[in-house]
Amino acid sequence: MTETDGFDDLLAVIRSQRACRVFADAPVADELIGRALDAAVHAPSAENGQPWEFVVVRDAQRRADIGALMARAWEAHGRAHSEGRLAPALLADVDAGLTGGIAAAPVLVVVAADTRRGLRATVASSVFPAVQNLLLAATAVGLGSALTTIATTYAAELRELVGLPDEVEPVAVVPLGVPARRLGPPRRDPFGEHTHRERYGILW
Amino acid sequence: MTETDGFDDLLAVIRSQRACRVFADAPVADELIGRALDAAVHAPSAENGQPWEFVVVRDAQRRADIGALMARAWEAHGRAHSEGRLAPALLADVDAGLTGGIAAAPVLVVVAADTRRGLRATVASSVFPAVQNLLLAATAVGLGSALTTIATTYAAELRELVGLPDEVEPVAVVPLGVPARRLGPPRRDPFGEHTHRERYGILW
Repeated sequence: MTETDGFDDLLAVIRSQRACRVFADAPVADELIGRALDAAVHAPSAENGQPWEFVVVRDAQRRADIGALMARAWEAHGRAHSEGRLAPALLADVDAGLTGGIAAAPVLVVVAADTRRGLRATVASSVFPAVQNLLLAATAVGLGSALTTIATTYAAELRELVGLPDEVEPVAVVPLGVPARRLGPPRRDPFGEHTHRERYGILW
Repeated sequence: MTETDGFDDLLAVIRSQRACRVFADAPVADELIGRALDAAVHAPSAENGQPWEFVVVRDAQRRADIGALMARAWEAHGRAHSEGRLAPALLADVDAGLTGGIAAAPVLVVVAADTRRGLRATVASSVFPAVQNLLLAATAVGLGSALTTIATTYAAELRELVGLPDEVEPVAVVPLGVPARRLGPPRRDPFGEHTHRERYGILW
């Protein structure tokens, strides 16, 4: 693999990684989950503390209970916040995802951080890079995924559902499954619109 | 590209991405920086708000000033916290990096979040995935990089150095440059040691 080939292949994965909120009724093998989590734990973390913990949930009732937390937070605060901010198609997609679509994925990975292996101030910078590796690896093996944090609105309940001890904080929930339909490329502004030279305001 | 090939190439990049804190005296073309930032902006973000802003700093004085913030935070709090927690070789590497090595990279990318495009509560989950894409893309094009957040200890001063308006929060500083020496693979615990089935404590 030359460096250029490596970059092109990486970019192909990065460009096709996109939030999936509707899943096919198809199983996901442990082996694929393991590959995605192996990628996740190679991410950087403060002091190389590797504070991540992953709880892989397949049980239907537990997935439904986690999904109920998502739906409750969405209905209590999220939808009102997003209405008028999101394009109608995206709002409808998020709405369907948070009221059942995501919880219907065959696997929900609850991502947490053990604060004994990292300061609270560095939890986010130490865990979200691992989550991104997880999403990219899932994409590369053909699985749909999404980065969701809304269930952590009810952290105490989420913690109880998967038995997290006090020192382990829930950070995100990532569904994994076969996408119900092919997802197009993500819509993003060109990087040059948000890149500056030397000082903010001198656009690239 | 088959799905398996895509995964293997991705994993090769993920496994070789590692914090670089000593850089060669060699230039970095704008084109490589652009490729890395293009990868960055394809990351997911809350409501697809894409709150990231990147300030690419090449000016030697400005890099030294940012480096001075890192050194000050390290000497005031960081080193005392890390002593006894890090293995001696890693501590020496971090120490050298935060007292000049990182600032000597030809490029420092100040990563920030525009809070007008995302709630403060979702800044971290919306920006660190983009930073991880940046690190992976840098690795794939042969550049050394590192995820650092210590300069944000003095956020007001960092903000002033690169002219960030009040609504734009500095989040991280990523050096980019040719590594001074070849980095070995990162040391990580196997994912199975931090992965559980259904409930925390039932190890994978």
